[in-house]
Amino acid sequence: MAIPGPRRLDSSAPEFEQDFNALCDDSAQQDAELQRRVADIIDAVRRRGDEALLEFSRRFDATETATVGELEVSAAELKAALNNLEAPLREALQAAAARIRRYAEQQALQDWDIHDDDGNRMGQRVLPLDRAGLYVPGGKASYPSSVLMNAIPARVAGVGEIIMMAPAPGGVINPTVLAAAAIAGVDRVFRLGGAQAIAALAYGTKTVPAVDKIVGPGNAWVAEAKRQVFGAVGIDMVAGPSEILVICDGQTDPDWIAMDLFSQAEHDEDARALLLSPDSDYLDAVAASIARLLPGQSRAAIIEKALQQRGALIRVRDLSEAAALANRLAPEHLELSVAEPEKLLQQIRHAGAVFLGRYCPEALGDYCAGPNHVLPTARAARYASPLGVYDFQKRSSIIHVTEQGASALASIAERLASSEGLQAHAESAAMRITPGPETD
Amino acid sequence: MAIPGPRRLDSSAPEFEQDFNALCDDSAQQDAELQRRVADIIDAVRRRGDEALLEFSRRFDATETATVGELEVSAAELKAALNNLEAPLREALQAAAARIRRYAEQQALQDWDIHDDDGNRMGQRVLPLDRAGLYVPGGKASYPSSVLMNAIPARVAGVGEIIMMAPAPGGVINPTVLAAAAIAGVDRVFRLGGAQAIAALAYGTKTVPAVDKIVGPGNAWVAEAKRQVFGAVGIDMVAGPSEILVICDGQTDPDWIAMDLFSQAEHDEDARALLLSPDSDYLDAVAASIARLLPGQSRAAIIEKALQQRGALIRVRDLSEAAALANRLAPEHLELSVAEPEKLLQQIRHAGAVFLGRYCPEALGDYCAGPNHVLPTARAARYASPLGVYDFQKRSSIIHVTEQGASALASIAERLASSEGLQAHAESAAMRITPGPETD
Repeated sequence: MAIPGPRRLDSSAPEFEQDFNALCDDSAQQDAELQRRVADIIDAVRRRGDEALLEFSRRFDATETATVGELEVSAAELKAALNNLEAPLREALQAAAARIRRYAEQQALQDWDIHDDDGNRMGQRVLPLDRAGLYVPGGKASYPSSVLMNAIPARVAGVGEIIMMAPAPGGVINPTVLAAAAIAGVDRVFRLGGAQAIAALAYGTKTVPAVDKIVGPGNAWVAEAKRQVFGAVGIDMVAGPSEILVICDGQTDPDWIAMDLFSQAEHDEDARALLLSPDSDYLDAVAASIARLLPGQSRAAIIEKALQQRGALIRVRDLSEAAALANRLAPEHLELSVAEPEKLLQQIRHAGAVFLGRYCPEALGDYCAGPNHVLPTARAARYASPLGVYDFQKRSSIIHVTEQGASALASIAERLASSEGLQAHAESAAMRITPGPETD
Repeated sequence: MAIPGPRRLDSSAPEFEQDFNALCDDSAQQDAELQRRVADIIDAVRRRGDEALLEFSRRFDATETATVGELEVSAAELKAALNNLEAPLREALQAAAARIRRYAEQQALQDWDIHDDDGNRMGQRVLPLDRAGLYVPGGKASYPSSVLMNAIPARVAGVGEIIMMAPAPGGVINPTVLAAAAIAGVDRVFRLGGAQAIAALAYGTKTVPAVDKIVGPGNAWVAEAKRQVFGAVGIDMVAGPSEILVICDGQTDPDWIAMDLFSQAEHDEDARALLLSPDSDYLDAVAASIARLLPGQSRAAIIEKALQQRGALIRVRDLSEAAALANRLAPEHLELSVAEPEKLLQQIRHAGAVFLGRYCPEALGDYCAGPNHVLPTARAARYASPLGVYDFQKRSSIIHVTEQGASALASIAERLASSEGLQAHAESAAMRITPGPETD
């Protein structure tokens, strides 16, 4: 084989634990120089607002305008981008949007209340965010599907205003991205990118309104800027490189699985693509498919590097061991390409999205199945969830205590507050105790 | 009045906007020296594990043990702490726990599925975290109520194991804290505190198991450590100083409102306590109550400083203006001490918890009403929610596509992937298209 391809591992080998741990390792290096430069950009936008935005656009995007207002994409331009799209692509975007919307509608959080015997009401009240910011990368990673996946849940949540930021080198944004913004119902779009766009969303300028939460992918500058503004606004997550783990019983066409691994690896040289199977001959077959199919790929160089760096074909004892290893990695995407995927699913605890069956490649989820393609990476699926409508809603606790209902609660609170040495808490509670027939 | 007390503001004054913005300002200073020292502690625990924990316990807690195992509180000690508690306090803790549990049970996320006409299944699967870590501060801020509020939702979520960390200067933990841990169902407790305890929870040592998420309050070292380990594990939030905003129509006993403001101010000199009323005479009355009641408070010095620094009595035009100002501040705690609180609630968009009615001081929510007392601070209620069962659960997306159902989805995905230049995505999808009667 001319192409080295992904490494081969065997779970029964003595060095396997060490090798697998190395594959799971996500310790990201912090880049102090990047942190400092991003902090400077954010500081400049906070202090000098629009003026700083214009300077950075000139410097980084070769965009020369007199005002930030001129960087806004008009509603007419958005509509034109949608109308000018060739019909099959427009229909595919609309079909995907409809499915994403239908799934999202299931996710909306609801108000609820409980009442106690004293007439007190305790509840949860759910409201959408007032304003959300959506970052869309420029250049080769400018994906219309990401616009749908980030904006539709916000719209379904009822967010008051969705502001999109997209860098436009030379003033141009991918027209399919603009069409997707029109389909998803984005309210305003600015031709602004990088850390400066994140700073503008977080703190606002004369022209760009401040938002309450920022979502969407981006390069290292954008990711670092999101990290730095977190607290002033909410952020979705700081995404790591994409990941796929496939568990196969050896009965799926090896070309299909090879292509599924490619579909992750083509994103990024740091992407992780793993196949686990109890069938050693099958791993040979997939390795052969990889070698045969790779040269025909337009992104072959990226795929090859990713597979070499963080790819592996792993022989496991059985499917249960595969499930256990998947749980350790907590992958962003998990394919169960086996005869009884629903049965194997019962052993899975940690994954961003699980794709069941031989006819369910991750690519269907990336575009149109309905569930979101923004998923926890770098083992965060142990504690985090896919992006959803709930990320654009927030809960408030509601407590309504009546005169009749106050005494019992206040007595408990008074006792606990006193034991904690918090006198004002105790007195504030005790003041609401009303003498009644039940008081002896 | 001998005591200066909180400032008086009027929303119709020309300088009001500036004054109110200053009250809302939360720009926290970053302490580079603290960041560096915390990073060193985390690094030491990652590299040297138990050995580093023993060293730090010796240095910071004056605790001298040969092994980290000896720092664990035994199940018998936890049980004894509960049994030895005086009965009224034990009963108050148990009554509070029952109400917190009942409320939490309403919060649990559920699985759901939708199916399309092609027989494909798209769903959400919810599972609890495997292991959660709970930090409990030592010393004067060691609150049994916080143990209940943090541990009960985790238990209700079905978290596999709850590990609690509490610093024990000289080896001693507040016995009421241990009793609360027993009531809440905490699995293991270690006498460990500070950044080193957070590092142990995040990365694990020979004795301390690594967890998936860390919750609970702490001092600046603990907060900074949580910030630094975020990503390796989930964290709840980095809490700022506590806040209360009271809206009163002028008909509540001014002593009650003064005490409600104290109950927030007594936590911390940086706590924020604001009263908004359209009734200027009423603000005078509350100011008089503050002056009269303050000297009787055991934490008078803290209260006085907090009220001077970040307290204010604000005259507003009407209750609607008060609601609008509350939305700008997005306070952690909001009391609606008015005749028709449910009506005013309709104008509120941003608050961690809302307390309705004159008989509902925040202290009831701090201890026993049921809703969680861990709430978003520093305007985060614009986008964040109270701590809840949902913080100890995570969702996975489930996509099950059948052979019959694959073709329509794969066609859409193929078209979108091609337009994005992602050939492997397109081919991976296209491979699942089966020729059928509907294909021409």
